[in-house]
Amino acid sequence: MKLLRVDLTKREINTEEITGEDALLGGRGMVAKILSQEVDPAIDPLSEENKLVIAGGIFAGTKLTSSGRLSIGAKSPLTGGIKESNAGGTSADRLARLGYRGIILEGQAQDQLIMVINDKGVSFEAADELQGLGNYETAKQLLDKYPGAGLISVGPAAEYGVLSACVSNTDCDEAPSRVNGRGGMGAVMGLKGIKAIVLDDSQSDELALRKKEQYQEMAKDFSRIVANADTTANYRKYGTSALVKVTDGLGALPTKNFSRGSFEGSDNISGQKMYEEIINRGGEGKTSHSCMDTCVIRCSNIFPDEEGNTLVAPLEYETIGLVGSNLGIDSLDQIARINYKCNDVGVDTIEFGATMGVAMEEGLCEFGDFESVMDMLNEIQENTLLGRLIASGAKVFGKVLGAKRVPVVKGQGLPAYDPRSIKGLGVTYATSPMGADHTAGNTVRAPLKHSKKEGQVEASKSLQPFVAAMDTLGMCVFLAPSIGKKRHLLADLVNARLDFDITEDDLMELGRKVLAWEKRFNEQAGITKAYDDLPEFFRKEENPDSGASFDIDKDELQRVFDDFPDFS
Amino acid sequence: MKLLRVDLTKREINTEEITGEDALLGGRGMVAKILSQEVDPAIDPLSEENKLVIAGGIFAGTKLTSSGRLSIGAKSPLTGGIKESNAGGTSADRLARLGYRGIILEGQAQDQLIMVINDKGVSFEAADELQGLGNYETAKQLLDKYPGAGLISVGPAAEYGVLSACVSNTDCDEAPSRVNGRGGMGAVMGLKGIKAIVLDDSQSDELALRKKEQYQEMAKDFSRIVANADTTANYRKYGTSALVKVTDGLGALPTKNFSRGSFEGSDNISGQKMYEEIINRGGEGKTSHSCMDTCVIRCSNIFPDEEGNTLVAPLEYETIGLVGSNLGIDSLDQIARINYKCNDVGVDTIEFGATMGVAMEEGLCEFGDFESVMDMLNEIQENTLLGRLIASGAKVFGKVLGAKRVPVVKGQGLPAYDPRSIKGLGVTYATSPMGADHTAGNTVRAPLKHSKKEGQVEASKSLQPFVAAMDTLGMCVFLAPSIGKKRHLLADLVNARLDFDITEDDLMELGRKVLAWEKRFNEQAGITKAYDDLPEFFRKEENPDSGASFDIDKDELQRVFDDFPDFS
Repeated sequence: MKLLRVDLTKREINTEEITGEDALLGGRGMVAKILSQEVDPAIDPLSEENKLVIAGGIFAGTKLTSSGRLSIGAKSPLTGGIKESNAGGTSADRLARLGYRGIILEGQAQDQLIMVINDKGVSFEAADELQGLGNYETAKQLLDKYPGAGLISVGPAAEYGVLSACVSNTDCDEAPSRVNGRGGMGAVMGLKGIKAIVLDDSQSDELALRKKEQYQEMAKDFSRIVANADTTANYRKYGTSALVKVTDGLGALPTKNFSRGSFEGSDNISGQKMYEEIINRGGEGKTSHSCMDTCVIRCSNIFPDEEGNTLVAPLEYETIGLVGSNLGIDSLDQIARINYKCNDVGVDTIEFGATMGVAMEEGLCEFGDFESVMDMLNEIQENTLLGRLIASGAKVFGKVLGAKRVPVVKGQGLPAYDPRSIKGLGVTYATSPMGADHTAGNTVRAPLKHSKKEGQVEASKSLQPFVAAMDTLGMCVFLAPSIGKKRHLLADLVNARLDFDITEDDLMELGRKVLAWEKRFNEQAGITKAYDDLPEFFRKEENPDSGASFDIDKDELQRVFDDFPDFS
Repeated sequence: MKLLRVDLTKREINTEEITGEDALLGGRGMVAKILSQEVDPAIDPLSEENKLVIAGGIFAGTKLTSSGRLSIGAKSPLTGGIKESNAGGTSADRLARLGYRGIILEGQAQDQLIMVINDKGVSFEAADELQGLGNYETAKQLLDKYPGAGLISVGPAAEYGVLSACVSNTDCDEAPSRVNGRGGMGAVMGLKGIKAIVLDDSQSDELALRKKEQYQEMAKDFSRIVANADTTANYRKYGTSALVKVTDGLGALPTKNFSRGSFEGSDNISGQKMYEEIINRGGEGKTSHSCMDTCVIRCSNIFPDEEGNTLVAPLEYETIGLVGSNLGIDSLDQIARINYKCNDVGVDTIEFGATMGVAMEEGLCEFGDFESVMDMLNEIQENTLLGRLIASGAKVFGKVLGAKRVPVVKGQGLPAYDPRSIKGLGVTYATSPMGADHTAGNTVRAPLKHSKKEGQVEASKSLQPFVAAMDTLGMCVFLAPSIGKKRHLLADLVNARLDFDITEDDLMELGRKVLAWEKRFNEQAGITKAYDDLPEFFRKEENPDSGASFDIDKDELQRVFDDFPDFS
């Protein structure tokens, strides 16, 4: 498998074999290694010195269930530290079939470009006609020209370089709605001059596999375990939105700028409600749907309007929490419209929701005011000063407004779990090199009393390296509950795929190594352990619905890293 | 001498004797010690946990020339690190006559207050009638009520808590125009609920001095040396504005957002031009003027309009550089009007000019567009979102705009010396715990080739502790050129004032100690040496007027601190 290195300043294209120990690296681990080795942590993230690393994992293209996550990473314009954000969709699988583990984008193009990758190599086209277009229209035009291809694209927000711009990937239905949302990776891509990457694998051969039959047999067994797990059944029926009623019950559903943890309108925005609506409305709606080929979890959905036409696909928990309950909006239709518009303009729904929550608390508009939310997205689309300010994310916006209650860690807005009510995830938010990130070690399924402090540091400490390993393998974290303690299965699959001989413990060590690379990068970028904390208001204010405030000492949070290797 | 400690939350007032070694501490040193010992570096600077330290030096009130600088310090909302900003005016002298070296403001008042300090103690009044008033009207109303008193006040910008809000002190003419400008100290004071501090020393006795006659004799000798120095004569005639032609000649006058170092309109905004205008216009104008009682340098001025009515007093170099040449404005009248408005609204002219420079480069208005600049100050006065954004300073503004050329270090806008053309000051900008600060070690008078890198680190290294000591003593740095190598005179004065027995070297050690406290605070606040650098564009772009780019390695910059004591 190769890495494709593209110098956009010089339009130079090179490929590099991935060999030795690095053969295991993909996704988040590839991001961490390349950024650590090649990018000066002191650079301006929006300068041409930054590198955008796009990478799948070792199983991409092998038809193993849930193994096609695509990581995109760079020095983050939002956090100022290292960033990796991964998404589903078809990009990683297509990249693998094209022969690449990943792409490194370097430098900056003079003009906006489309990069086309097919079996013959890489070519560029002018993106003039796509300039300023949303992700959906961009996808439509490109797929007219390249039927059947996959796309990695950015919306106008990224072209303007706003800090919360995201990157979109097309899914199995050719919708550009699988989003590398966090940390402003879109801004880095947009300012490098890449409007879209066309992954045309129509002429590519099947991926060659060593010991093919044996591997396929293992993959099939693995799929069966995942497909039959109870947790998977729940994911398949309600998707991530099943969490709405769970977190609402725990007092952990962000409500009106994290002022409460339960929402009076939660029944209207729950997974159950969504399921019913999709069934009732019919048409294009689907209650279950794969974002990646061959994924057996199928947690995704297509949410239709009353006429059965697609409003957005998928509608997911984090978005419902951040632009729904957190903004006092209790209509799935309105949430779906906000979600679609965010995807189209190309801003992270989590960051946007966190920012609008602050805006509402500061009186820019009322909680529940859907029209104002849409107006703000239009401001972003039109690149007005107000739009840029909102799209700069909650931290910058809160600073300008002088807001006291700004839910961010290391410059990144909090996902949809109140860290007072799910304290283990609070530990992860505080300490992850990624900033507040629900995928970096989410303890919501850990057998703990979530609003108590006991055991939370340990839970985060054991989850973070595991997740870092999963993100490095390009595997969806939703596999975790279905495989439970059988993590050795992952090591077995690695060994079958690569002729390695690693254990489950080695995978955890890989995760720690990745985290150590990330932490070192951050420290050199000035993001030290001084930044490993939650906003003060979570410590001072009790969440009225869980009765808890965040009470784990800052020093104690550092125990997450106390047995970490020093990879400096 | 005492410290006045005021808990605004509880309205508790205490006084503390300053004893032992601490007897020497005032000004910046007092800020550094109190912040280090009493304030958690991790706090939100705009929360009630921050403390505002207001302190003069040991000579305040003793009628020694140029010894009445008033330091104001806190954790800075602008830089996120420790901050001290000092100003002239009468506050430090009055505080000393009232018996206080300084004031520590803690907590946060519920309502906006005026704090009145007289010989009977401290009392509070409601500030309702002053709410939203500019510093000039505030001063007028308070001085009607307290004739002859001194004032420390804030404008509406501080009441709104914007990041670049400053603090004003009245001068010998009762104008509230001696400004602790940098780092947002006004925001801290404003959010603590203090609109103004009235220093009513009308019933206070003269300050008691030990060995009075001997001290007064020494003070007189010292004044004579200062008064007769050549450098003083220049200060007295043209004030700081004499520097306009000096820096213009060196290619160091910030011009149009630091894109050039010489300004085509520099003759119209020079000290010489100002001198002529003041002479020609007559009326209230004064070419020379003391900001502090008994100062023999008299570098200040009163700049009148064509009718001879005061436009602003003083008009000084940094303001001319930042809101004049840096904005392409070549009219002293326009600069004076901007200056007055900044003082009145209560924002730092340097930060405002640095921000507007970025705004102009980004196309918000044209270089030279005076009306738009005034409009922007009205936006700040009216606390609009745009006004708040501009008043958040160049760093935040640049981030929102996605600007590439943002002249800031550690979140603080650069003063009026291009660091490519005066590299020693560039070293100071980069490494000072204060962020970009021209008073923290200005090498413009050092016998160096300013655009070459040789000797610049050493120059900054020897100046920074000296200045930190001067700032701790409350002495104006403009003394430095007049005393030249006779720094022992400062030690002699300390020994006469306090019954100490220190040397010139001890003063340098004091300066290093203060810097070490500041650096430690910053490190714990997350402002590590990773932040000790200039913006990248100064390294990449050659200044066309000096032919120089900034080329001192980041590692080499750290040599400034290599013999520092560890006071952790």
